[in-house]
Amino acid sequence: MSQNVVTGPTFLAKLDASREAARVLATATAGQKDAALRAIADVVASSAERILPANDLDLANARENGLSAGMQDRLRLDAARLGALAEAVREVAALTDPIGQVVRGSTLPNGLKIAQVRVPFGVVGAIYEARPNVTIDIAALALKSGNAAVLRGGSAAQNTNAVLVELLQEAIAGVGLPADSVQTIDEFGRDGAAQLMRARGYVDVLIPRGSADLINTVVSQSTVPVIETGAGVVHIFLDESADESSAVDIVHNAKVQRPSVCNALETLLVHRAVAEQLLPPVLAALRASGVTIHGDEATRAIVADVVPATEEDWATEYMSLDLSVRVVDDLDAAMDHIRRYSTHHTESIITNNLARAERFLAEVDSAVVMVNASTRFTDGGEFGFGAEVGISTQKLHARGPMGLGELTSTKWVVRGTGHVRG
Amino acid sequence: MSQNVVTGPTFLAKLDASREAARVLATATAGQKDAALRAIADVVASSAERILPANDLDLANARENGLSAGMQDRLRLDAARLGALAEAVREVAALTDPIGQVVRGSTLPNGLKIAQVRVPFGVVGAIYEARPNVTIDIAALALKSGNAAVLRGGSAAQNTNAVLVELLQEAIAGVGLPADSVQTIDEFGRDGAAQLMRARGYVDVLIPRGSADLINTVVSQSTVPVIETGAGVVHIFLDESADESSAVDIVHNAKVQRPSVCNALETLLVHRAVAEQLLPPVLAALRASGVTIHGDEATRAIVADVVPATEEDWATEYMSLDLSVRVVDDLDAAMDHIRRYSTHHTESIITNNLARAERFLAEVDSAVVMVNASTRFTDGGEFGFGAEVGISTQKLHARGPMGLGELTSTKWVVRGTGHVRG
Repeated sequence: MSQNVVTGPTFLAKLDASREAARVLATATAGQKDAALRAIADVVASSAERILPANDLDLANARENGLSAGMQDRLRLDAARLGALAEAVREVAALTDPIGQVVRGSTLPNGLKIAQVRVPFGVVGAIYEARPNVTIDIAALALKSGNAAVLRGGSAAQNTNAVLVELLQEAIAGVGLPADSVQTIDEFGRDGAAQLMRARGYVDVLIPRGSADLINTVVSQSTVPVIETGAGVVHIFLDESADESSAVDIVHNAKVQRPSVCNALETLLVHRAVAEQLLPPVLAALRASGVTIHGDEATRAIVADVVPATEEDWATEYMSLDLSVRVVDDLDAAMDHIRRYSTHHTESIITNNLARAERFLAEVDSAVVMVNASTRFTDGGEFGFGAEVGISTQKLHARGPMGLGELTSTKWVVRGTGHVRG
Repeated sequence: MSQNVVTGPTFLAKLDASREAARVLATATAGQKDAALRAIADVVASSAERILPANDLDLANARENGLSAGMQDRLRLDAARLGALAEAVREVAALTDPIGQVVRGSTLPNGLKIAQVRVPFGVVGAIYEARPNVTIDIAALALKSGNAAVLRGGSAAQNTNAVLVELLQEAIAGVGLPADSVQTIDEFGRDGAAQLMRARGYVDVLIPRGSADLINTVVSQSTVPVIETGAGVVHIFLDESADESSAVDIVHNAKVQRPSVCNALETLLVHRAVAEQLLPPVLAALRASGVTIHGDEATRAIVADVVPATEEDWATEYMSLDLSVRVVDDLDAAMDHIRRYSTHHTESIITNNLARAERFLAEVDSAVVMVNASTRFTDGGEFGFGAEVGISTQKLHARGPMGLGELTSTKWVVRGTGHVRG
């Protein structure tokens, strides 16, 4: 049961207002939307005195409630972080508007002209954890792609988010677009999140962002279509023919460069024929950067002081300086392991054998498959999309890094001159 | 509770077998898949003596259970229908294979080569009603696009479907592809359908085909991503400037040419300024073809012997020779009505006014929007897709007529030469 007392508009009245806002946004020009985004950037950069007291309140509650240091850090805003957020919004404003792009089209044999055109989804719902930067981020991406956004942030960030949404609404209304283009439903508490997941007909798509638990809850409870962004139990396979220096560099980069993100390496698989040669230098480089190795028996026979890997380790997304390591008999055994434990995010093979590279690329069923590259390249920015909407691990609609285009639907426009079907 | 007694493999064992088959299909060549399709066409055309006795049994049960004449007709197979089904499968075999198509790709500034490539979903589930033709149809489309199919047909067609799936499996195995590429779960009854809807991780996408009730059940109960194909409460708006002969011809074609399908017209909206001029000839032509008119008060003031339209009529997909008719004040009132009652399938405006045509096309939020054309053109065959996978009324993944490409996902293939992220 929620203990929130709601005194403002009812839940459905808010969603109705989002739909109305979406109608206006659907035909807003890129110029109008970009003006709103620049106004948002300005207000975020200049409103520390309104934002930070609310954030301090959330941080005080977080300490009182014993939130972890990591969660407190993700919750914290300061002048520098607000500046970076504003800059990110300006970058979104500078991107090409996907709306109105003609995906394909033709003139049919009967003269009918058909065109498939990018349109906004309408209302995009987002459910996420206590990271107030996501509030600005999702609102900006939704607005750029002509969508109204309904936000349910983590309750630990509720005071911060309330102020941020006020600022967003002021900025948007200030350029003549509907204030309701961005709304929060935080005041409805957990009940609100549950209602949002069942708001089919009001919300066109739901994007959960956060832990695997959060995403699983949304996926299993939602009747609104969900874009699953995701957990990454990411693998690299060092093939028999792997180049040693590539192996050392790529594994180190994939694990160490930024261990807390979904495209970071979690499990290293090594071909038995080269395990004795490759594991010592690869693991030494990792350990020099503070990585804890969880290895199978074969790994522990080659390298000393390795923590025994448990069955659970193979399925774990550490998001920390930990790595599971397993020696496998061959490419097929590597792919069997990946099939069993992967979350189908990103897997890479390090090899100089063309046939095995092609088999890996063809047979591994993940959003991104790589040869001789660090898994850290699975990223909208790296792929040249300009914006980081998330990385989809589902197969419907969008798979892998998502750009603004993945926040749109399409419609078919058909132009006739009195055409009837024969 | 299901009363079915299952003696064969368990439900999950069957889905495991589908996944294994999907792995093989994912890398099967177009040549192999087309050979399987031609074998299916041959066996469907030549196996009347195996199929029709099972179909007779289903028909006898249908009569005993008091199924409507229409449902009995959809359930019935005969030599001519089997021949048409076989021919349709041959047409699918002749289409271009979508698998392996490169959707987009580039070389990044750092030299990394990225390409987004079409791949099968994996396992496609289908839940449909007692139309045995759908069994062959979905199996062929899934196979062509490299997907394994798990079928749950209506229980009234269970004996027919069992034989059809046996024949499909024999044909597929006969060309060396896995027999389990197509499976039925009809033996698990309603429990099987419920389990299929929750089989996330086993089934990649679920396609319901049939009544609005069936589709709503699947959409609300499924945790597997669903492609909603759909009900069509389809509208035509006769604008002030509509050409009279176009109005008569298009409305007649949209309502009468094939009233039982989702792109048939259900509600006609007429601009008040031309209602007296247009309604008499338009409705006279419809009545000459046996259409019953359900009209609002203004309509009934202009044309005699019109059934009063109820609130329910506006939301009804008749799929019969019935039509709701309403007089509206202007384009905005027409779009308000559409927003309230449409299922967002197809809407068309008949007009000679450019500004109003463009507003209608831009502002009406449906999968297909038309000007001066019959709504019957919303069709994969008419759009040149070659195959009729269904018409999606959702905004995620696919919207409007779906071709084979909409039965696929994509993956990103990344080729480096030792690339690490800086």
